[in-house]
Amino acid sequence: MFKKNNFPQHSPEITHGVYLIGAGPGAYDLITVRGATILSKADIVFFDALVDEKMLSWCPQAKLVPVGKRCGKFSNSQLFINRQLVVAANKYPVVVRLKGGDPLIFGRASEEIEALKNADIHFEIIPGITTALAASAQLKQAPTARNISRTLRITTLPTKLNYVDQETLIYYMGRDELTQIADDLIQKGYAPSTPVCLMESVSLPEERSFGCTLQDLMAFQDETLFANQKPVIVLVGDVYKETIKHLPALCEVYSDQNQYQPIAC
Amino acid sequence: MFKKNNFPQHSPEITHGVYLIGAGPGAYDLITVRGATILSKADIVFFDALVDEKMLSWCPQAKLVPVGKRCGKFSNSQLFINRQLVVAANKYPVVVRLKGGDPLIFGRASEEIEALKNADIHFEIIPGITTALAASAQLKQAPTARNISRTLRITTLPTKLNYVDQETLIYYMGRDELTQIADDLIQKGYAPSTPVCLMESVSLPEERSFGCTLQDLMAFQDETLFANQKPVIVLVGDVYKETIKHLPALCEVYSDQNQYQPIAC
Repeated sequence: MFKKNNFPQHSPEITHGVYLIGAGPGAYDLITVRGATILSKADIVFFDALVDEKMLSWCPQAKLVPVGKRCGKFSNSQLFINRQLVVAANKYPVVVRLKGGDPLIFGRASEEIEALKNADIHFEIIPGITTALAASAQLKQAPTARNISRTLRITTLPTKLNYVDQETLIYYMGRDELTQIADDLIQKGYAPSTPVCLMESVSLPEERSFGCTLQDLMAFQDETLFANQKPVIVLVGDVYKETIKHLPALCEVYSDQNQYQPIAC
Repeated sequence: MFKKNNFPQHSPEITHGVYLIGAGPGAYDLITVRGATILSKADIVFFDALVDEKMLSWCPQAKLVPVGKRCGKFSNSQLFINRQLVVAANKYPVVVRLKGGDPLIFGRASEEIEALKNADIHFEIIPGITTALAASAQLKQAPTARNISRTLRITTLPTKLNYVDQETLIYYMGRDELTQIADDLIQKGYAPSTPVCLMESVSLPEERSFGCTLQDLMAFQDETLFANQKPVIVLVGDVYKETIKHLPALCEVYSDQNQYQPIAC
């Protein structure tokens, strides 16, 4: 699919070692060209539960090993994954660890990196499109904008939050803490009317997006809406003021309205 | 190079419109597969001064239009670029605007998006690897780590900065404000010993990295070190404590030492 001589000189030579590759947000073709090329040369691929099956069509030649910690399906502990990588690196020339999003943005790569370092195994990291970028592209809205927000803060819970004016916040893995996030932010000084976008399964066919305000989110009590346990990203900031007008309201499950209606919620 | 039937169903159909594509940090193969595929179908490509020439080998069939605002080389104003995009969209089926990094992370895409919306032109945004991710991959160090940092703040100057404990900061376009960044952060409460990584031309053959502390950076006065006007990214946080030990010291141009030596600086 990719010819080796297409590689520029400054790309890493793919000969041996462990490649921690960011799969991107989900869509098969939002992996980097470098990531897909290494997959096509891999002997063995350890992949997350979050990685879409279509992504694995890049490596039909490879032995596939599902690892992950979601829903108990492949409940391999991190320690076991670390050991598997080291064992595989001593057995196969090209070992890939394929991780959803970017390996280094809340990707829990640190323990794997430590294990590989301790075992003196050569490894490279190939960055991936982290969900915050893919979500922004889908919304067609930059997280920063002149005179509205000059800073983007990317975080998970629990974290220490200070109120910072003119800042956009993007939360990863916030699905189970939505009302807590809203409550925290309002208590820290964010206006209850601050716009919020919620996005699930970004870039995949089943992607869903909702718009609301912090106030709406604090009152949100529908346990069924995100019951399928897919990843949800939460984008908070004045920069989304126009965006939420074009998204289904978070409360449309009650109100059956397609446009954002804060008062009706 | 890519066959159309390789596309999954959820990828956007490439028929007509303007595609704002993130080229990634610089290396030819750190663009996404989707971005490279659209480039290979483009009729005309408007590209930034920051985009590496090798990237354009993805679109040998396209008319190439350099636009950008660096060094006065192709000093097209943003207004002129907006107009060119609208004119091209009415003339060619597939128009690409190729932007360094990610279009929506300090990529100044907002004005182009506004112009396309106003002209009622269909457009899509294809995310790209933003430099913070590529820099982290090269350093093999995540910007967040348990018990050290749970939050990543991405910003440019000028911005309002509050001291937030356990937070990693990554500055874009900081090259001309290095001592100012260090001075600001120390005044806001960051320890003078806080580790700092500086990276230039991330992912390209000419990439350079330096390690120091905020204190060192505040005293930095070598105007020649970054005289070539390449983009510099500044990574600040305790998470880089080990990383800077393995980088050339910022002051090695004076001390001629290859390892980080804060006292000698």
